[in-house]
Amino acid sequence: MLLVWHLLRSTLAARFNKPDSEIVDHYTYVILGDGCQMEGISNEASSLAAHWGLGKLIAFYDDNHISIDGDTEIAFTEDVDKRFEGLGWHVIWVKNGNTGYDEIRAAIKEAKAVKDKPTLIKVTTTIGYGSPNKSNSYSVHGSALGAKEVDATRQNLGWPFEPFHVPEDVKQHWSRHTSAGAAFEAEWNTKFAEYEKKYSEEAAEFKSIMSGELPSGWEKALPTYTPESPADATRNLSQQNLNALAKVLPGFLGGSADLASSNMTLLKMFGDFQKDTPEERNIRFGVREHGMGAICNGIALHSPGLIPYCATFFVFTDYMRAAIRISALSEAGVIYVMTHDSIGLGEDGPTHQPIEHLASFRAMPNVLMLRPADGNETAGAYKVAVLNKKRPSILALSRQKLSQLPGTSIEGVEKGGYIISDNSSGNKPDVILMGTGSELEIAAKAAEELRKEGKAVRVVSFVSWELFDEQSDAYKESVLPTAVTARVSIEAGSTFGWQKLIGSKGKAIGIDRFGASAPAGKIYKEFGITAEAVIAAAKEVS
Amino acid sequence: MLLVWHLLRSTLAARFNKPDSEIVDHYTYVILGDGCQMEGISNEASSLAAHWGLGKLIAFYDDNHISIDGDTEIAFTEDVDKRFEGLGWHVIWVKNGNTGYDEIRAAIKEAKAVKDKPTLIKVTTTIGYGSPNKSNSYSVHGSALGAKEVDATRQNLGWPFEPFHVPEDVKQHWSRHTSAGAAFEAEWNTKFAEYEKKYSEEAAEFKSIMSGELPSGWEKALPTYTPESPADATRNLSQQNLNALAKVLPGFLGGSADLASSNMTLLKMFGDFQKDTPEERNIRFGVREHGMGAICNGIALHSPGLIPYCATFFVFTDYMRAAIRISALSEAGVIYVMTHDSIGLGEDGPTHQPIEHLASFRAMPNVLMLRPADGNETAGAYKVAVLNKKRPSILALSRQKLSQLPGTSIEGVEKGGYIISDNSSGNKPDVILMGTGSELEIAAKAAEELRKEGKAVRVVSFVSWELFDEQSDAYKESVLPTAVTARVSIEAGSTFGWQKLIGSKGKAIGIDRFGASAPAGKIYKEFGITAEAVIAAAKEVS
Repeated sequence: MLLVWHLLRSTLAARFNKPDSEIVDHYTYVILGDGCQMEGISNEASSLAAHWGLGKLIAFYDDNHISIDGDTEIAFTEDVDKRFEGLGWHVIWVKNGNTGYDEIRAAIKEAKAVKDKPTLIKVTTTIGYGSPNKSNSYSVHGSALGAKEVDATRQNLGWPFEPFHVPEDVKQHWSRHTSAGAAFEAEWNTKFAEYEKKYSEEAAEFKSIMSGELPSGWEKALPTYTPESPADATRNLSQQNLNALAKVLPGFLGGSADLASSNMTLLKMFGDFQKDTPEERNIRFGVREHGMGAICNGIALHSPGLIPYCATFFVFTDYMRAAIRISALSEAGVIYVMTHDSIGLGEDGPTHQPIEHLASFRAMPNVLMLRPADGNETAGAYKVAVLNKKRPSILALSRQKLSQLPGTSIEGVEKGGYIISDNSSGNKPDVILMGTGSELEIAAKAAEELRKEGKAVRVVSFVSWELFDEQSDAYKESVLPTAVTARVSIEAGSTFGWQKLIGSKGKAIGIDRFGASAPAGKIYKEFGITAEAVIAAAKEVS
Repeated sequence: MLLVWHLLRSTLAARFNKPDSEIVDHYTYVILGDGCQMEGISNEASSLAAHWGLGKLIAFYDDNHISIDGDTEIAFTEDVDKRFEGLGWHVIWVKNGNTGYDEIRAAIKEAKAVKDKPTLIKVTTTIGYGSPNKSNSYSVHGSALGAKEVDATRQNLGWPFEPFHVPEDVKQHWSRHTSAGAAFEAEWNTKFAEYEKKYSEEAAEFKSIMSGELPSGWEKALPTYTPESPADATRNLSQQNLNALAKVLPGFLGGSADLASSNMTLLKMFGDFQKDTPEERNIRFGVREHGMGAICNGIALHSPGLIPYCATFFVFTDYMRAAIRISALSEAGVIYVMTHDSIGLGEDGPTHQPIEHLASFRAMPNVLMLRPADGNETAGAYKVAVLNKKRPSILALSRQKLSQLPGTSIEGVEKGGYIISDNSSGNKPDVILMGTGSELEIAAKAAEELRKEGKAVRVVSFVSWELFDEQSDAYKESVLPTAVTARVSIEAGSTFGWQKLIGSKGKAIGIDRFGASAPAGKIYKEFGITAEAVIAAAKEVS
């Protein structure tokens, strides 16, 4: 049901083709059915494809009038051609999609001639064509024909051969493509060899995008901070990282779903990726979160050196959750830049305040859920996100300003959970305080107070549970000693799942209801997300 | 950003209006902006609105060309009018939406005259109209004007009054509506009193829909089962409940997103809700999960006696998660019938197999996540769902057949977690086995084996964690005694969150990776979701 266009062809062609050498010249073909046309995401992606003028995108719409529940008459009676013309596509109708091969060939030729618009080729077909008793019905949509009907179909189509037998003439017909393909490849290799001689710098960059090899020392571009660095929102610190990375990573690009100035995602040295400027790297997705995620999956899977990021408010991951799951399942290393990550966003209120979202992604397989606390942890989160090409990373970032904390580090983030301060000895603190993101500084403040009262207190940042899970048992024991059951967690989100880290005797401070509209400071106090609450809980458990 | 149409007007009008008395005659007005138009869900809902021929639906599209990131030229250049014509709407363009009051009035009149289609009135406006320095820019989209610009705007518009002062002539102009409204209400009351005399049965039903009072004894319609009842999939048992409830609840209606025959959601005594048969109760949503959820929110919030259900595969809640969160936040008692709830669905493979979904909804506030194990628990889940009008219920149901278990009950489900079998005494079992849904029978089997070996074993069904959380401490202690730390859970989904119930010393059996394509029996064995695994874990912890 997902429909993904590769805007990448367009941007790669613009960046690497030369007047005398077109090394990027492929078309992207899409096949979609009635079900795809009903899903909202396909309209989002199709609207963008036309906006960007993707002339080398050709979509075949299998117009067979059958979906799982029967004839599409029961739920889908719109004029698809007209809708696509409204979206800005060139539309062609092939009336006989069952056997009209010449019509299909002519349609492809026409589509290629239209250079400033994507083309939809509506191909009217009969589902289960050839099956005498089941064609044109929902019974061939989700089930196999069955042995009897397969026999009847073979007879009906005049196909006398045994199962899996390929007649010689058919084999020969298809085999032509082996040599033709080899010739095309050799031709391109020669072209690229010449290109490499003339344009060595561009060729090196192109090869790094195709291979995925990161430029050596790229991670030195990541900014670092000291406790004296000014307090800042992690969304702003994120923008410093995005801009630093775009300078050193040729395949780094992305944008926001109409929230660039809130998500802080603009790359300052680049312009907008648009129809007339496809070489630029700031992508304007519009208010289309689901389409945005799907497009970034397409980018990530196009070439290993392409590293797409996309952004919206963390709560709106609900709109694009299906795309994020596809990232995880397809091992697409998309970077999800999700700002306004808690009730700390303030006045926008509960429609905009994530509660359950951290838990919901920690439960999703093959996702790195990262919630950095300050500048060093934000840089660490980006290091992890760039390196993890086989799984998506979600960065939950604050709208509000946060202090730069002593003890945080990029190396710490790479371990997922690590000690940022400790006045205990022999791995036996009186109590362990743990937090993530904007609440880590609250845990640190509570620790200071408790230490004044003579307590041995350890503070642990749990920036990524998944990375911590992957550490050795010895490391885990060094951070969370089994013997220490006095544990308190603080996170401005659902407490669901924290029992894993705090154990049966620990206390989890969080929010298990919807938020409210008020300034961040006031709402934190109202919901009890405070150093005082941590101190009281610590005394209760230790 | 959500766009919800009330198909309800259409169905209520068809069911209750009489040739001599039209008691349902209201229009539904929608206001939407450029951002709404970009979101896929609006296309889903708009396609359905036209398919159903909702002639009394009138949508104003505030065409102001500005979204948060600036001019919509950067991401949204489609021809919206043409798209809506393609969808089957009547489209009117009001060119001067700032001051063209007569044009707007004329457009509403025209829209009302078109009886077989919904109407989109595109109203071209200037955002921040009247503000001399900020109108027509993104700076009035998300921020207040500020005192200085408010002054400038007042001056520019020739508005000499103090803040919050309403001039007498304006007050008089608006006050007319008080008496006019009262007259309309009195007129309708008279009409309804006559209707009630002539059509007492229909009037009673109409009043029950408007008031939300359930017919007395409705819950007796719920089917019950004994261990001798045939094994069946909970999706099939769900259909028995849906059909039983539709007979006794006049406001019960719903459907599926093109999976009615897989979700088992058809009401056998009703036909399809369609343009020409709006009195029927089977809604065909097409492959539009997000729109389906939003429409059901509209139905639930329309009148307290309307109880909508909607269905798809559990994994596709990812497509409609934003709508489900709106149900929870808006206290809309939608019933989400989610079948194919685990790897047990078999061959469709990981794209269709939910893993993290149970955990992700258990973490969402104000949602009842129910996973019934057999017939009695499915009936219990429906009882809970119908009674909980202020929160949505999600029913996770199996594709595969399950045994009818001894010890399950409707009353048990109402407590969320309860003992289905126990051979211990003094609230001191050697081990507590817990499970939900399709894995409860695995826990029961493991218990039988362990008891043969002389163990005192308790089996607990955790059909709804939220309901269990709401029980008294004494009840919770009677089910999960603090002193018994030997606990094993089994659920064919993420183990995330189970630590809350099994404690630090328990074992959670589940799946923390994506699934695989194979028949249910084989895949359960492969992933270790077996009675043998429960027995081994029980021995390890006890």
